[in-house]
Amino acid sequence: MSEALRTDLYQLTMMQAYWKSRHNPEATFDYFVRKIPSGSYLVTAGLSYVLDYIGNLRFEEDDIEYLRTQGFDAGFLEFLRDFRFTGDILAMPEGNIAFPLEPIIRVTAPIIEAQLVETFLLNRMNFSTLITTKASRVVYAAKGRAIAEFGLRRAQGDAHLEATRATYIGGCSSTSNVLAGKKFGIPVSGTMAHSFVTSFDHEIDSFRAYAAAFPKRCFLLIDTYNSIEGAKKAVIVGKELEKKGEKLLGVRLDSGDLSELSKQVRMILDGAGLDYAKIVASGDLNEWKIDELMNKGAMIDIFGVGTELVTGRPAPALDGIYKLSDVVEHGRHIPKMKLSEETVKATLPGKKRVWRIVENGNFVKDIISLDEETFENAKPLLEQVVKNGKIICGRPSLDEIRNRALKNISCLPDKYKKFEDAPSYPVEFSSRLTDLRERIIEKIRKEEIRG
Amino acid sequence: MSEALRTDLYQLTMMQAYWKSRHNPEATFDYFVRKIPSGSYLVTAGLSYVLDYIGNLRFEEDDIEYLRTQGFDAGFLEFLRDFRFTGDILAMPEGNIAFPLEPIIRVTAPIIEAQLVETFLLNRMNFSTLITTKASRVVYAAKGRAIAEFGLRRAQGDAHLEATRATYIGGCSSTSNVLAGKKFGIPVSGTMAHSFVTSFDHEIDSFRAYAAAFPKRCFLLIDTYNSIEGAKKAVIVGKELEKKGEKLLGVRLDSGDLSELSKQVRMILDGAGLDYAKIVASGDLNEWKIDELMNKGAMIDIFGVGTELVTGRPAPALDGIYKLSDVVEHGRHIPKMKLSEETVKATLPGKKRVWRIVENGNFVKDIISLDEETFENAKPLLEQVVKNGKIICGRPSLDEIRNRALKNISCLPDKYKKFEDAPSYPVEFSSRLTDLRERIIEKIRKEEIRG
Repeated sequence: MSEALRTDLYQLTMMQAYWKSRHNPEATFDYFVRKIPSGSYLVTAGLSYVLDYIGNLRFEEDDIEYLRTQGFDAGFLEFLRDFRFTGDILAMPEGNIAFPLEPIIRVTAPIIEAQLVETFLLNRMNFSTLITTKASRVVYAAKGRAIAEFGLRRAQGDAHLEATRATYIGGCSSTSNVLAGKKFGIPVSGTMAHSFVTSFDHEIDSFRAYAAAFPKRCFLLIDTYNSIEGAKKAVIVGKELEKKGEKLLGVRLDSGDLSELSKQVRMILDGAGLDYAKIVASGDLNEWKIDELMNKGAMIDIFGVGTELVTGRPAPALDGIYKLSDVVEHGRHIPKMKLSEETVKATLPGKKRVWRIVENGNFVKDIISLDEETFENAKPLLEQVVKNGKIICGRPSLDEIRNRALKNISCLPDKYKKFEDAPSYPVEFSSRLTDLRERIIEKIRKEEIRG
Repeated sequence: MSEALRTDLYQLTMMQAYWKSRHNPEATFDYFVRKIPSGSYLVTAGLSYVLDYIGNLRFEEDDIEYLRTQGFDAGFLEFLRDFRFTGDILAMPEGNIAFPLEPIIRVTAPIIEAQLVETFLLNRMNFSTLITTKASRVVYAAKGRAIAEFGLRRAQGDAHLEATRATYIGGCSSTSNVLAGKKFGIPVSGTMAHSFVTSFDHEIDSFRAYAAAFPKRCFLLIDTYNSIEGAKKAVIVGKELEKKGEKLLGVRLDSGDLSELSKQVRMILDGAGLDYAKIVASGDLNEWKIDELMNKGAMIDIFGVGTELVTGRPAPALDGIYKLSDVVEHGRHIPKMKLSEETVKATLPGKKRVWRIVENGNFVKDIISLDEETFENAKPLLEQVVKNGKIICGRPSLDEIRNRALKNISCLPDKYKKFEDAPSYPVEFSSRLTDLRERIIEKIRKEEIRG
């Protein structure tokens, strides 16, 4: 299926208007985020999807036929037939740490091309970055305990594959999502549901049936009727496994006071010599609840997290935007910005770069500059990934992206990872950018408002 | 691509355990919702996806190969090769109104089959129902004004198609999502972005270029620099269109105080004789904000709603669940339920039906009963859609589903549609169901907890 129509209608109407008015200057757009819904930082993800899209972007015959039924101009539809993306793209690699207002992706192309790609780019970058960031928070809360993602049943429909990929980049250890396991090579994990237990005459029958089927990887769900009684039955089955030379891997709690129950269950297991059996806990967990459980000394080895991880709840959307910052007319750069009633919705003009100052392995400060500026002792964060429509960057594996993300997260000082009231990371504008911004605001006020 | 692996790993491990222990009784599962995140009712959707899935469910060679790498038993993998769904499904048709605890779908099949389909069914039903319900609330808030959905850029990745379909069933009038328009035949709408305006030397140049490209469907975005000044320029272009025998369709506001600005812009348009031009408003709208705008007398004809509609924000997931309620052993029905620490997480035992009492076209009360009970003057809500693995129901068009949803929503009294503190709609259990539930709870307490 062609991805060309995975866009907003207004991209196509604008394209026709650009085409018809022969207004097709080289334009630069920035993808950035104004406000982070939870916390102070983002872990970027989604670029792989954008590059695949850019590389394959074309309108198929049936796309063009559909647009014909929507009243588009015949000449414009002919133009779409040979449409290709021919521009340049700079981007932060996947797994980077980004902050508000920093260009994460910078697209430079004839405006008719740069305009079209907006919607797909936003759709992918917003969601993958949202979920990767969320996962990094949940992983941070668990202080080294593993996070198993099992959100498929509550994921937003087909979003589940991209969501699972993002949770893995953000540091989760495994997924319940078999298709994601197959497609991305992510480790899969899973045990049993309450229905398995209740389908048997007695709970212990279900435990024995499962242990017989999976003697080497047996986790038992013990809260179907009563977690403490369930733990005692798990001990019986664990002892039976020992007699066969096997070991019960663990038990899972899915309801009740997880802190208190985990301690009691730990005592029951240890008391019976099953100190090797792990405790998995699940049930609407998130970074705040895991943090609380850890602070209470819960005896939990693995956290299963579903809904919150894959939907980003309570903030299911990242408001990343794609804004025009520069147009070239008659060989001259004309910096552009949106002003609007709400100052907070204004944008930064001109082609820009982002720089990061790192000291002793810690991220200290970022600078947003104009394109032509350079800063010594600062690392440029935008890398060229597409040149004249061709992808020129390497395509790292998912594990490479995940490792980069984990490395970057470890360089961000802990204070920025607090779940409440994290301070803002310092992002400065270069003085030349600040000057340009003031000049453009004054120009707009004069020409468009007071004029 | 095969859909068989779009499931949680534990469905497959449980299946292997059922298979290995030769424990494969006929089982009945209910899909239902315990708690509705916003409001008192649900508008069901997603059944079309479930039926397509059931009809095509099989494991392809590469699925089986992947499972082999995950350590599944060779005999079990052979069994999967011929796997088909052979059971019965009863369901509320798409576009029905449902309430907490009511079975929306009831699956009866050998447990090894009924277990597998859980994850896909939950994934689709939870998301489509969530978004259709959300859309019905946004549409209700607008009191007859049209809702244009444009959430693609903030949708959760690939969820956007299902989301747009759901918003249309829930009553939205159009979408910006071109692919959804092509795939589902949903009307598409869209105009221009701020980048279109800023890409020209002056705002009015951009308006003129757009009017030249789309003289018959010209909406102008007027808030790029200043909404009032933008409205005055829109009037100039509207007058120019009049001279060509055309009419400006309208203007769009995307920031600022939408109530106040819409009134001022309405006066500017009317004062210039452009009383026919409509005002579209957008900018992080939802049912509460639209309700407030309507109460303030905002002069808005069309609301554009994006993020909140397609993600369900602030509640991005519906906690619909799929629970075992009955198992047949040696020809005898054994009602099943989960008890657990938290009473609220207990389930209803036995094969069940749902009935609705309607008076003068208004929904009055629902009854959940056992399978064999009937109620005079009550409408049965569950219809058989699959028999022995074959789909036996009609497959209504999207517009038919939408019309049914709108009809059903209109039968729900207004008090249940309030955005805050809506009362609970009365859902009663039949006395036989109540008796059965008490009996099973006592049995579990005796055999699994005190035992």
